Amino acid sequence: MRILMKIQYNGLNFNGWQHQDEGRTVQGEIESALSYIHKTFTRIHPASRTDKGVHAKEQYAHFDTELNIPAEKWAFILNSKMPKDIAITETFEVSEDYHVRYDSKGKTYRYSIYQTAKNPFYNGLKAHIDKDLDIEAMREAAKYFLGTHDFTSFSSAKAVIDYKVRHIYELEIEETNDGLDIVITGSGFLYNMVRIIVAYLFEIGELKRKPSDTLKIIESQDRTLIPITAPPDGLYLERTFLNIQELEDYLEENLEKH
Amino acid sequence: MRILMKIQYNGLNFNGWQHQDEGRTVQGEIESALSYIHKTFTRIHPASRTDKGVHAKEQYAHFDTELNIPAEKWAFILNSKMPKDIAITETFEVSEDYHVRYDSKGKTYRYSIYQTAKNPFYNGLKAHIDKDLDIEAMREAAKYFLGTHDFTSFSSAKAVIDYKVRHIYELEIEETNDGLDIVITGSGFLYNMVRIIVAYLFEIGELKRKPSDTLKIIESQDRTLIPITAPPDGLYLERTFLNIQELEDYLEENLEKH
Repeated sequence: MRILMKIQYNGLNFNGWQHQDEGRTVQGEIESALSYIHKTFTRIHPASRTDKGVHAKEQYAHFDTELNIPAEKWAFILNSKMPKDIAITETFEVSEDYHVRYDSKGKTYRYSIYQTAKNPFYNGLKAHIDKDLDIEAMREAAKYFLGTHDFTSFSSAKAVIDYKVRHIYELEIEETNDGLDIVITGSGFLYNMVRIIVAYLFEIGELKRKPSDTLKIIESQDRTLIPITAPPDGLYLERTFLNIQELEDYLEENLEKH
Repeated sequence: MRILMKIQYNGLNFNGWQHQDEGRTVQGEIESALSYIHKTFTRIHPASRTDKGVHAKEQYAHFDTELNIPAEKWAFILNSKMPKDIAITETFEVSEDYHVRYDSKGKTYRYSIYQTAKNPFYNGLKAHIDKDLDIEAMREAAKYFLGTHDFTSFSSAKAVIDYKVRHIYELEIEETNDGLDIVITGSGFLYNMVRIIVAYLFEIGELKRKPSDTLKIIESQDRTLIPITAPPDGLYLERTFLNIQELEDYLEENLEKH
């Protein structure tokens, strides 16, 4: 039986999702609970691998089991074995050929910053930018990312995948009570793509770059033009769309809002 | 010149205030910045030593300096050398015989819990109690703590100070949108006293103990009756009253509120 888990985690004290030689990882914590229950090593497969310090409000991962436990009971069993910075909120059965990474249809990421005086209670949860940002300039630049583009210019040189075309459905700047959030929804994201786009938009907001150059930079497909990456603080995997219907419902609701 | 610093910190990733052989401490971080600036070891003296995992929204500590730097500039200089989980928000000169631990007139602690589903983003910031609590019973028990008492029954066996009489000005249960906060203001607190009182009030809320037994337990001056201590998650040193006027203003405002 293949079980799909819905997962939340606070990335602050994790060395990312994926198993590392050193440090706690989300994959490591969940696999070690599952392996203990199964008395044999049990692998999990995520929708996305998040980097060190990145949070998830809606991550998914699946595993296979031969234990005779109802699918929905796994959430309770696993959650009771999780540390305080991981919650497994729901579990359900999927077909044996389902693979969440390939079968999911898109994701939303949120990047949160605050602009008031330094607040230790935001440590790792919101990035701190102690400058005024020109939100209208950021919104103007954001429009150029919408649609289908080759995002080579906004991907890490470390990216191993050759096909760099992705579709961006939404890129919004939302004002909050003490800063702003950047919300981006796409069919998928290249390695570091969200953090490079976010860092680029902050440079636009600080008037270091002109919004009207954005399309030229995207079209150049040149990795060296934007040599900046925003820190992981404040980055959340906010939604994972398991199917087209979920994505369409989300977009319909959000395009109305803006 | 003696400089008094106003300090905030997120205790999650600290091994407490006081220097330890292992792990980060708040004292260690601030002393190491000060010692670097002074090119010689520079000691700081706090209003309260907080335990591992405990937060502060208003802690104070002072140090002596011979450097010719205006008192109010120290906040900016030190803050720029602090990690993201400590903020030094204000600095000012005090007289050479001032000692914040002995000269301050009281403190407020806040203990925050949430009662909704497990939330990884509250990790270390609010304790999780997944049970209904009888708030009226907790409020009834809270009244017995007000006033001047010997708090031996509510102090750790590890307490080294012999004089255990303290005055409690305020002990309130405040409902929040997803749980409740316990707010306690006193002339001073014995080692673990806040966490033992809080754990006791939660047992009252769970109907494991009767509110009417509270005075008898206080008067017994018996450390073995309440062998429980609430975890540090969710405990905040919220206010430090530097003088009687600050304390009186606070109490006047809060006694009106309730």
